Amino acid sequence: MAEIITFGEAMVRLAPPHFQRIEQARQLDVEVGGAELNTAVGLARLGRSAAWVSRLPDNPLGRLVANRAREAGVEPLVKFVDDGRCGVYFLEFGAAPRASSILYDRKDSSISRVSPGEFDWPTIFAGAKWFHVTGITPAISPSATAVTDEALRAAKAAGVGTSIDLNYRSKLWTREEAGRTMGELLTRCDLLLASEPDAEHLFGVTGRDFAEVAKKLIDRFGLKMVAGVRRATPLVWRNTFGAVGFFENKLFTTADYEVEIVDRLGAGDALAAGLIDGVLAGDFQRGLDVGAAMGAIKHTIPGDLPWVTREEIDELLTGHGLRIRR
Amino acid sequence: MAEIITFGEAMVRLAPPHFQRIEQARQLDVEVGGAELNTAVGLARLGRSAAWVSRLPDNPLGRLVANRAREAGVEPLVKFVDDGRCGVYFLEFGAAPRASSILYDRKDSSISRVSPGEFDWPTIFAGAKWFHVTGITPAISPSATAVTDEALRAAKAAGVGTSIDLNYRSKLWTREEAGRTMGELLTRCDLLLASEPDAEHLFGVTGRDFAEVAKKLIDRFGLKMVAGVRRATPLVWRNTFGAVGFFENKLFTTADYEVEIVDRLGAGDALAAGLIDGVLAGDFQRGLDVGAAMGAIKHTIPGDLPWVTREEIDELLTGHGLRIRR
Amino acid sequence: MAEIITFGEAMVRLAPPHFQRIEQARQLDVEVGGAELNTAVGLARLGRSAAWVSRLPDNPLGRLVANRAREAGVEPLVKFVDDGRCGVYFLEFGAAPRASSILYDRKDSSISRVSPGEFDWPTIFAGAKWFHVTGITPAISPSATAVTDEALRAAKAAGVGTSIDLNYRSKLWTREEAGRTMGELLTRCDLLLASEPDAEHLFGVTGRDFAEVAKKLIDRFGLKMVAGVRRATPLVWRNTFGAVGFFENKLFTTADYEVEIVDRLGAGDALAAGLIDGVLAGDFQRGLDVGAAMGAIKHTIPGDLPWVTREEIDELLTGHGLRIRR
Amino acid sequence: MAEIITFGEAMVRLAPPHFQRIEQARQLDVEVGGAELNTAVGLARLGRSAAWVSRLPDNPLGRLVANRAREAGVEPLVKFVDDGRCGVYFLEFGAAPRASSILYDRKDSSISRVSPGEFDWPTIFAGAKWFHVTGITPAISPSATAVTDEALRAAKAAGVGTSIDLNYRSKLWTREEAGRTMGELLTRCDLLLASEPDAEHLFGVTGRDFAEVAKKLIDRFGLKMVAGVRRATPLVWRNTFGAVGFFENKLFTTADYEVEIVDRLGAGDALAAGLIDGVLAGDFQRGLDVGAAMGAIKHTIPGDLPWVTREEIDELLTGHGLRIRR
Amino acid sequence: MAEIITFGEAMVRLAPPHFQRIEQARQLDVEVGGAELNTAVGLARLGRSAAWVSRLPDNPLGRLVANRAREAGVEPLVKFVDDGRCGVYFLEFGAAPRASSILYDRKDSSISRVSPGEFDWPTIFAGAKWFHVTGITPAISPSATAVTDEALRAAKAAGVGTSIDLNYRSKLWTREEAGRTMGELLTRCDLLLASEPDAEHLFGVTGRDFAEVAKKLIDRFGLKMVAGVRRATPLVWRNTFGAVGFFENKLFTTADYEVEIVDRLGAGDALAAGLIDGVLAGDFQRGLDVGAAMGAIKHTIPGDLPWVTREEIDELLTGHGLRIRR
Amino acid sequence: MAEIITFGEAMVRLAPPHFQRIEQARQLDVEVGGAELNTAVGLARLGRSAAWVSRLPDNPLGRLVANRAREAGVEPLVKFVDDGRCGVYFLEFGAAPRASSILYDRKDSSISRVSPGEFDWPTIFAGAKWFHVTGITPAISPSATAVTDEALRAAKAAGVGTSIDLNYRSKLWTREEAGRTMGELLTRCDLLLASEPDAEHLFGVTGRDFAEVAKKLIDRFGLKMVAGVRRATPLVWRNTFGAVGFFENKLFTTADYEVEIVDRLGAGDALAAGLIDGVLAGDFQRGLDVGAAMGAIKHTIPGDLPWVTREEIDELLTGHGLRIRR
Repeated sequence: MAEIITFGEAMVRLAPPHFQRIEQARQLDVEVGGAELNTAVGLARLGRSAAWVSRLPDNPLGRLVANRAREAGVEPLVKFVDDGRCGVYFLEFGAAPRASSILYDRKDSSISRVSPGEFDWPTIFAGAKWFHVTGITPAISPSATAVTDEALRAAKAAGVGTSIDLNYRSKLWTREEAGRTMGELLTRCDLLLASEPDAEHLFGVTGRDFAEVAKKLIDRFGLKMVAGVRRATPLVWRNTFGAVGFFENKLFTTADYEVEIVDRLGAGDALAAGLIDGVLAGDFQRGLDVGAAMGAIKHTIPGDLPWVTREEIDELLTGHGLRIRR
Repeated sequence: MAEIITFGEAMVRLAPPHFQRIEQARQLDVEVGGAELNTAVGLARLGRSAAWVSRLPDNPLGRLVANRAREAGVEPLVKFVDDGRCGVYFLEFGAAPRASSILYDRKDSSISRVSPGEFDWPTIFAGAKWFHVTGITPAISPSATAVTDEALRAAKAAGVGTSIDLNYRSKLWTREEAGRTMGELLTRCDLLLASEPDAEHLFGVTGRDFAEVAKKLIDRFGLKMVAGVRRATPLVWRNTFGAVGFFENKLFTTADYEVEIVDRLGAGDALAAGLIDGVLAGDFQRGLDVGAAMGAIKHTIPGDLPWVTREEIDELLTGHGLRIRR
Repeated sequence: MAEIITFGEAMVRLAPPHFQRIEQARQLDVEVGGAELNTAVGLARLGRSAAWVSRLPDNPLGRLVANRAREAGVEPLVKFVDDGRCGVYFLEFGAAPRASSILYDRKDSSISRVSPGEFDWPTIFAGAKWFHVTGITPAISPSATAVTDEALRAAKAAGVGTSIDLNYRSKLWTREEAGRTMGELLTRCDLLLASEPDAEHLFGVTGRDFAEVAKKLIDRFGLKMVAGVRRATPLVWRNTFGAVGFFENKLFTTADYEVEIVDRLGAGDALAAGLIDGVLAGDFQRGLDVGAAMGAIKHTIPGDLPWVTREEIDELLTGHGLRIRR
Repeated sequence: MAEIITFGEAMVRLAPPHFQRIEQARQLDVEVGGAELNTAVGLARLGRSAAWVSRLPDNPLGRLVANRAREAGVEPLVKFVDDGRCGVYFLEFGAAPRASSILYDRKDSSISRVSPGEFDWPTIFAGAKWFHVTGITPAISPSATAVTDEALRAAKAAGVGTSIDLNYRSKLWTREEAGRTMGELLTRCDLLLASEPDAEHLFGVTGRDFAEVAKKLIDRFGLKMVAGVRRATPLVWRNTFGAVGFFENKLFTTADYEVEIVDRLGAGDALAAGLIDGVLAGDFQRGLDVGAAMGAIKHTIPGDLPWVTREEIDELLTGHGLRIRR
Repeated sequence: MAEIITFGEAMVRLAPPHFQRIEQARQLDVEVGGAELNTAVGLARLGRSAAWVSRLPDNPLGRLVANRAREAGVEPLVKFVDDGRCGVYFLEFGAAPRASSILYDRKDSSISRVSPGEFDWPTIFAGAKWFHVTGITPAISPSATAVTDEALRAAKAAGVGTSIDLNYRSKLWTREEAGRTMGELLTRCDLLLASEPDAEHLFGVTGRDFAEVAKKLIDRFGLKMVAGVRRATPLVWRNTFGAVGFFENKLFTTADYEVEIVDRLGAGDALAAGLIDGVLAGDFQRGLDVGAAMGAIKHTIPGDLPWVTREEIDELLTGHGLRIRR
Repeated sequence: MAEIITFGEAMVRLAPPHFQRIEQARQLDVEVGGAELNTAVGLARLGRSAAWVSRLPDNPLGRLVANRAREAGVEPLVKFVDDGRCGVYFLEFGAAPRASSILYDRKDSSISRVSPGEFDWPTIFAGAKWFHVTGITPAISPSATAVTDEALRAAKAAGVGTSIDLNYRSKLWTREEAGRTMGELLTRCDLLLASEPDAEHLFGVTGRDFAEVAKKLIDRFGLKMVAGVRRATPLVWRNTFGAVGFFENKLFTTADYEVEIVDRLGAGDALAAGLIDGVLAGDFQRGLDVGAAMGAIKHTIPGDLPWVTREEIDELLTGHGLRIRR
């Protein structure tokens, strides 16, 4: 029934407040995040109906994750099960010269035990317009790979557009494993979100610039569109953030925003949300712009989820300035 | 009995911690603020006796506002009443490219129901040296306009100096309404605090520079002095802040301070406090300097109130550096 | 589409932590509550699909209320509007001999400006089984009274069962107004939740015991069922809580639970949820038991919403004891 | 100028939250308290103008203490000085079978260095009606003893009524020292607040009951009135609290309130406030009742200060019950 | 080198504040706990040198656990490894009629992967006087069972006294598994801590009273001493707590303390600490008394660790009352 | 037994959160710090066994300090005594143009009452390789000066290397006193940490650059090595931090790190730790690099203690960049 379907894991995120190290922590702030959930939230905030497919333990932590998805406007199509646990990750916020860092505790999560056939994809895709997944989901376990493939095939069969954010996670699999699997999955993908380094590390694809890399990826995997984040990280609390895309043999770019960083997690997922919104509206440039703006604003918001309104994005795109808004 | 009298509304200010959006909030920090109260506090911190005239509901919120005024050294000349409510405003702290923003919930406040004759201004002004009000107070309601006028007339009658901070609030009235009302009130004003844009929008007064605008305003309304903030906002967490003034046909300026911003609300009100202090001491330049320094330091302090000491201001004016002070 | 429909206001609830007085508060905890929303949440927690009809301002506070409804499993059928404000209430937790207390700041809320015809009740009731409202909703404003009546008529027309919790609020209307209006609305009600004092104060109905009062109410208004809370309040942190009901000329009672009170708000609304669940399942006694158990557990949970599972209720009903559950 | 004058030390109070031991603390809650300040606050809350005489260091801690006094409605007649420090005490909240406990760090406080002649008592007492001090003030240092004596003599000379709360602190002086000094000071006292054990330990005064002890104290020291707390401590979180007094050869008692304890510090000081209020109004029984009620409510409020209203006291005295007050 | 050696797992404990459900949590308090660590801390607080043997991941969570052990006075003999994870448990504090509850997330912890031979027990026991372990350690994994056995044999070989707290955890193994394994381990045990229900469920041992059960256990397993908690749980916030023991054919009991419960976890482990202390001092009754007092006070302290001093225990044993200790 | 011995005071540090002024504080964060303890922690974090010699009151505050030392990996060789108090300091975090500032409340601390002969230095230095102290310890009191001298002589007698961080504190003694005393102590020092201004103010030693000053200090006091911090403070939240040293007639420097400042206290002490580590390893340049890196990272961590790992330092030295580390 939802316009947008995404599929993947969301975890409980635990972070000590105020730049404490985990070793110092006496309290942890609780957020929920996961790349595909984050993107679904972004689309919901843009006014689209979005559902997120996942598998969670039938316990308070699993329910907490689903509750928060709903709170943020996403319909959780969650299978609650008795096997596996709820993935957790611990986040330490850094400051130059100490980068922020993440300690994952996601092994044996309920979604790692998902099996093909568990989700009724044709029903899920009935009436949907777009399916989004990232390279994290197939990396979780072999059966998760199989279900990702199953979902992408079902999406294609249902005539639903598809996007994949490459999102290589070196803790979960090797470059070779990732390259092989993602290469296969990309053949069922319309829109790819990827960085130049990942294109090289996973597929050996290199080029003079983003356009050349994108063109090669499009040719190799039969994609329609490629896009990516453009970020500079001179400091931990200050970055620049923008986006670049390639579509119909043309390079598209956005403004680069100077961002004061409260919490940069989920910025790339917000870009994906904006871009999908634009693609669905038939305007790639607009999608890239909305995505970059949403991603830029995301840096200023605690948690992984883009608590942004379309109105705020429009104001940023039209340049409202940084004085207090009364 | 107090040296300084100010008149206006103060509200309960509720802000989510750590850059959260209001939608995310599970806790709100409680501060109290209002332009005229803020200025009264600034003057009290500079060692002058200051009283603040207002009207508040006779309930815990109203008492909280008055308590906090007292805590900060100001005598609340508050009429506690059973009609109306306590104004509230919700503040979201931003980070580039998201500006900070305010959601006002101040309609039907007790002070909006004030009537002429409620305050015994001649008694209030007995022994006073200065009266300060801003353009917010008359904007609250027609009866508040009338009482502001009543207060200014009484001040003049008592030989008390007067200052008005233009402080145009577009949520409360139109430029036309504001221009008409403020134009009338300014004829009873000695010292005006204003920005060039407000001068243009309310009075159609423009000029090559601040000096020319100030001169025109002085001529038009019979003012003695005009001053204003000089601010640049390259980022949300970093601004420059200084002041400029015009008096006896001469332009006065201060240093521009680079400020790391914890909370910029009330910085302009702190400037007003320092300036009034200087004017009362017969030294406009000193007042502008003290005001700019107090306003600059205010940016580093949570809440609207300038918890600064005169000693700290003097140290800033003499350049103490940014190393830890032991 | 939802099985259960409720209609009413939910407010942002602000409470100082740890028994502080409002006057002392430097932080406020943010919860969301409203009698009809609370009951909808209770039914959602029991596994039923529940929707809550309301009217909220299109601003962060309004969205916060709707988000929290969704988080707790309820579909918000909310009309977001530009008129009116978001109701707020301030809660002080007490301890003997100081009772807990509430300071309402709900005047001019968006829902007070609701008009007949704004909600498409026939569509809302399509497929629904039950409609619940309390005496608070019609008390908000004359137009809210009219819309409550409209909803009850539409429910009846759609063959949907109806319940009303009398919930007299003396701050909103007089006993006479309430008696007149509620008397009219009760003629379209199947299940009434009420206390003996309210029955007397609003309708002049008295009796030897609950059964006699219930019987008279049933006769007078053509009700099917009457139920109510049975509470003793020897202390603020310790009460006993149970329920009593009257149906088909028979008195039903539940166990009385000794409750250690964390937050007693919403306990009666949780009782309503359990009771409606039982009535829908055709088992009045079971409904009363589930409702009393849910209400008892609600006392131990911060906020107005009953974050309880059916499994926990069943365990309480079968007597699991108070040792740590591992 | 104030009606009531009190004299003594107030300290910064630091307490770990939620029953933590000091050894566990990562955060401390900051309150301000001191017996004579607490009583002054109680009288201010009852509507009387109250001033508190003290000596504090001219630093942020000293100012914090004075600010908080003002916040709570008391005029601080504080001499800010460069000698000595701000007294601090650390409070651990207990639970049965662990009593709450206090670790004092008050040595060498600024007030310990007070000298006779520093305060202009005749001016301070001009227009005053009552002077209150406790046995803590003279215990701080020999010079503080001298200034206490000076103040009492000045009060008597000015025709101001006087009260002393015996408040024996074994950490500050021996029973012998206390007995000798307090015996001398009591000869200038109208109203004594004391417990039976302290009467025995300091003065060797014993009796069958409170009345006999009070009568002996009155005879020995030329007092007019004696009163004291009546407390039972079956648990740490639950006590009963009431008061007993003796005046004009008659015993007076109040209700005993069952109190759920949030913070019992300052309950006795609140009793003193209510009693002084009643004595000034010429009604000893009423004073004892108001004091006992204020003291009982004080147990439910964090910090040492009695944030209570006269209206709440009246409601408790007329029996309002423990249900939520809306 | 340490006098006391304990062996087992400690976990990071995460608990929502103020009685929140996990589903509601936005913050979690971080404590560290584990039965054998808790007992080691109790002995360290009593002045004995205590070391705790464990296996933890070489990451911030593992280090946090070891840091906290050291903070509380225990020497962590921890092998930091790269396999396995840090066990975590989530704790919900309850209130009647909702019991407190624990959600364990401890699967695949580093200690579950311990192998015989990893710890050099003879060196660890050099100079030691006592070894303590609970039935949780062998329940973690088969290899943990083997290492527990290894440790007990080494203790016996080194002439070190041994104690086992039965501590049956139904989530970790069945009664049958536990009965078989613990029965074997108990043959190398001097002092058993156990409850009557566990004795029955694991070993089928029943009796008229604790003495008879203890006698049977002593006969069956060749124990020297048996002891256990005596607890009544009328409410969640109020229990009574005492201890009972059997030694040299005699029954020993302690006072039953009425406890107001802040956090009851670790109370039994504190009893074990006191008892071991007494046994080492050759005074079983004194050990039981110290243990019961320490366990009673533990209920009032947040976290699993008994932050108690011997002086406080002595005061409780001699009856100091519940008034504030200054 | 420890490799490294340090000697000095550590205090309880109390700081209002989020840039509040002390006057505004309602909560204070509790940390523990002291120059010599900080350096010992740095060395422990680098894998060396470190002990810290001090004198603390036998009360919860004194124990808290020792507990925290242990938590951070340092063995506290603390004499717990009944005389004196626990030093406290209050810290206000600033933002440009307001510098951070410290209010010391350390008078009459237990360590100020230390006497020669209290510590058995020969035993303490048995097996040790290095002794570190700062100019703060002798500044505390004359007897602390004597014990510092005693310790340095014992270190020299035991063949233990010594370092002194000049750390001049103008609140504790005059430049003349400090110059005289430190000049004497430096004759027993191998490695001096000092700034050019302190060298001039205490010893009148000046030079064209650090190398010349260092050479003169080496010649005058018979030192082997001199090193110091190189810091620029353009803002409060942004500094650059590096180090410079002089050894065997050669100047050594490190990279200058741009640091985003969470808490800069203890950065110099971390530099000392790294440098001592390098000197012990026979590599002065490496020591300076490790120290500068540890000091730079320290700026990003709340509290005075360097919660850093050697692995993180190595990564910084090899340039890992500022992206999130997963």
